[in-house]
Amino acid sequence: MDGLDKKLQAQLAFLIEIDKLKLVERKTKLIHENRLENVAEHSWHIALLAIVLHTYADQPVQLDKVIQTLLIHDIVEIDAGDTFAYDTSGYADKEEREQKAADRIFGLLPEEQAKQMMEVWYEFERNESAEAKFATSLDRLQPIIHNYMNDGDSWQTYQVTSEQVKERMKGVEGSSKKLWELTQYIINDSIESGKLMK
Amino acid sequence: MDGLDKKLQAQLAFLIEIDKLKLVERKTKLIHENRLENVAEHSWHIALLAIVLHTYADQPVQLDKVIQTLLIHDIVEIDAGDTFAYDTSGYADKEEREQKAADRIFGLLPEEQAKQMMEVWYEFERNESAEAKFATSLDRLQPIIHNYMNDGDSWQTYQVTSEQVKERMKGVEGSSKKLWELTQYIINDSIESGKLMK
Repeated sequence: MDGLDKKLQAQLAFLIEIDKLKLVERKTKLIHENRLENVAEHSWHIALLAIVLHTYADQPVQLDKVIQTLLIHDIVEIDAGDTFAYDTSGYADKEEREQKAADRIFGLLPEEQAKQMMEVWYEFERNESAEAKFATSLDRLQPIIHNYMNDGDSWQTYQVTSEQVKERMKGVEGSSKKLWELTQYIINDSIESGKLMK
Repeated sequence: MDGLDKKLQAQLAFLIEIDKLKLVERKTKLIHENRLENVAEHSWHIALLAIVLHTYADQPVQLDKVIQTLLIHDIVEIDAGDTFAYDTSGYADKEEREQKAADRIFGLLPEEQAKQMMEVWYEFERNESAEAKFATSLDRLQPIIHNYMNDGDSWQTYQVTSEQVKERMKGVEGSSKKLWELTQYIINDSIESGKLMK
């Protein structure tokens, strides 16, 4: 798009590049159809979780910040891929892979916007602010709702135990009493109904 | 999820139902792969357009409102389906189909939230506020970027002319001079390169 000014060209290059997030598959299947979810549609879904469930955050959160974080935080997976929650070997070089991806993909944007988006992503990764913690909780809650609804599909496929799920979900406890109650309900009921190994 | 309180049950019923938006196909193909885009991933993508391009709105807009509008506005398509931009017969009963869908789907939520979400959707549909107009512009801009990048795929398949595209895009002119410039660039270059019929 040579006829356009450089700033708009850079913005379009980014917006065209991130279309690739629709091709990155997660390990979780959809609720209503037997196919893997992709990261773009997952990002949309957790933003809706934020809109509907944000009043359950124990510390007050800025909803717009939570939403933007959820929409942006997985873009690095275009290069770095989705690291499965229970894949310990994949986690070994996750940080390095994702930093490289962030540099390349956010780096397509005009400098000021690249910096802003990188900041949002860093804040999520540091997991210190109330917004980052609540966003992390929603990001982890969504796939357990999916597993609960689709007979524990990825729990069964990858032989995940309830202890692993509890460990993965423990941040929810400090972020939202209500969503922690929901998490425990899902885990316990999934064990009882045989969707999740004890 | 009988063990949970009624409010949370209603919220989960909605969040589980909207997973179906990932199954609703649009007429536009992805940029980097030869498959149709679904409405959930489209909604994510246009929210990112808002984050990156909102400074080009001629009237100041509240970014968080634009983003929430874009994330929510197509949920009715779970029942009503995606009405192709250039399908005049589909538009005949679009309003009625979508109102019925909104009643059912937003109606799954607790009353207060159902009302709030319906309001966001009405405001988008009325297309009067600065936010609604800018959201509409982004919603229409995204598929022409896709067509520009994938050799005019759906323009070719459905024999869409540049006059139809111009008509469809005319709201952009009143909403953002800069994005109107981009729209004209895309249309003209697409005609010249044979992606779009004059």
